[in-house]
Amino acid sequence: MNIKKYLKSNKALIEESMTGLMTGGKTLTDNLHRAMNYSLEAGGKRIRPILAIAACEAVGGESKKVMPAACALELIHTYSLIHDDLPAMDNDDFRRGKATCHIAFDEATAILAGDALLTAAFEILSRKALFTNIDPAVNIEVINDIARASGAGGMVGGQLADMEAEGSKSVDFPTLEFIHTHKTGALILAAIKVGAKLGGANKKELNALVKYGELIGLAFQIADDILDVTGNTETIGKDAGSDEARGKATYPSLLGLREAKLRAAELLEASIESLKEFDEKADPLREIARFIVNRKS
Amino acid sequence: MNIKKYLKSNKALIEESMTGLMTGGKTLTDNLHRAMNYSLEAGGKRIRPILAIAACEAVGGESKKVMPAACALELIHTYSLIHDDLPAMDNDDFRRGKATCHIAFDEATAILAGDALLTAAFEILSRKALFTNIDPAVNIEVINDIARASGAGGMVGGQLADMEAEGSKSVDFPTLEFIHTHKTGALILAAIKVGAKLGGANKKELNALVKYGELIGLAFQIADDILDVTGNTETIGKDAGSDEARGKATYPSLLGLREAKLRAAELLEASIESLKEFDEKADPLREIARFIVNRKS
Repeated sequence: MNIKKYLKSNKALIEESMTGLMTGGKTLTDNLHRAMNYSLEAGGKRIRPILAIAACEAVGGESKKVMPAACALELIHTYSLIHDDLPAMDNDDFRRGKATCHIAFDEATAILAGDALLTAAFEILSRKALFTNIDPAVNIEVINDIARASGAGGMVGGQLADMEAEGSKSVDFPTLEFIHTHKTGALILAAIKVGAKLGGANKKELNALVKYGELIGLAFQIADDILDVTGNTETIGKDAGSDEARGKATYPSLLGLREAKLRAAELLEASIESLKEFDEKADPLREIARFIVNRKS
Repeated sequence: MNIKKYLKSNKALIEESMTGLMTGGKTLTDNLHRAMNYSLEAGGKRIRPILAIAACEAVGGESKKVMPAACALELIHTYSLIHDDLPAMDNDDFRRGKATCHIAFDEATAILAGDALLTAAFEILSRKALFTNIDPAVNIEVINDIARASGAGGMVGGQLADMEAEGSKSVDFPTLEFIHTHKTGALILAAIKVGAKLGGANKKELNALVKYGELIGLAFQIADDILDVTGNTETIGKDAGSDEARGKATYPSLLGLREAKLRAAELLEASIESLKEFDEKADPLREIARFIVNRKS
């Protein structure tokens, strides 16, 4: 299979779907929707929704069944970037080469755009017309999976742990793994779970995909850390070396670059092993794992 | 009926339920849950969850059926207060006589505590064990009602419109009504809708309660505006006269105090009229309407 083509065509489908879903309510000013769309359109690999689609397809489900939930995941990811970039958090003026939301608009609008995107994700996940062929009990389970992965016990908890660890000299390996499995890993795992469930996975398939999701969630973050050391600013769209400048604990800083690369390679191998019972319909998941570890940006 | 007793006993039940629901996931630091609980415990009248309970009871439902959703509404209300108080928004150091979240903790923690509370609301609303006697389709509808009321087309949209109007000399009456129906009214209406639906309301009952909800949502905000002029700082727990100092458009500033009071009284009368088909089980709703308009804090 051609993974580049798969990623590109699904990215386009996701972006088209997101535009269709973001019709929004009546507002007095356009600024809120402008800020929300500005950040949604700022690009990115759309890796979470693509993983949801690939997991759905791996168990024989049609991708359109998972599309609204896939888009909801991207809305949540986008809100988290807007809030992470705020002056009180990472204070980033640029992301993917574009001004961050609070720079392009203002801080209040950025906070509210993030809040509105998070809320919109749950509005989409509970919009009846989008889940007509889904058992309502599964629909609710999916909402719960995503809420758990995004909140205090998942992404938000990981983000606070990351902020509190920043600049601290005592960040040890368990802390680093906690941060990564929560800040990035939880939502990636949720994407795969949700794709599998909406695709009609049986228990055995779901367990295997959860294993896969845990492994590539961590691999994704290690690859990100490595790129921050080895990439250049232009390719990765943010300042290379910014983690080090901030005194951020990363896999390369704790393990060394060579060991971090080995760890990523091991996780890649294990993630592909976890899919051994699946046929060629899981090839996109296998290729995405390779892409995640070997990407240059 | 004794409305004070009703409000007090339900407030206690809601606060007990919230504590039980906020068990949370594993975290590295306690700060996130401490900040979330700090703001949840900061008090307030718990008017949204009480309205959900009263609406449920008005249609003959048991209050325990609506309790988790009622608590979720209070989590959303609390998150909105945390974010509204931030330096980039209203920049308030105190609320209800206590330091606001970003003062008691820090700005980053406050942003994340708000995010986590919003997410926790949807986690609670989709926690299967909490809705065992509820049709999953109704459960999903309730999630959607709350998401719509809270997002860009509701509360968040109203908050941005409010911020943009602040200090502007050209705020007219339609703008003021837009701000109020969205910023405050939408979630109050959602509380009543959700209580009615989980209580098993038929279509006619639901329509009447929606009417009631629209009327008291607006009455609530007018009463708030009036209190800001006539109350004293100690009773209302925030600086009296703060709206005027900020050049905020309010009912008294646009209509005059006398006219604003008349408008609140008319809304109260109409809200009670909207309940004319209900028996004494709707007395709490009738008394809450009176309480909302006549309260001194």
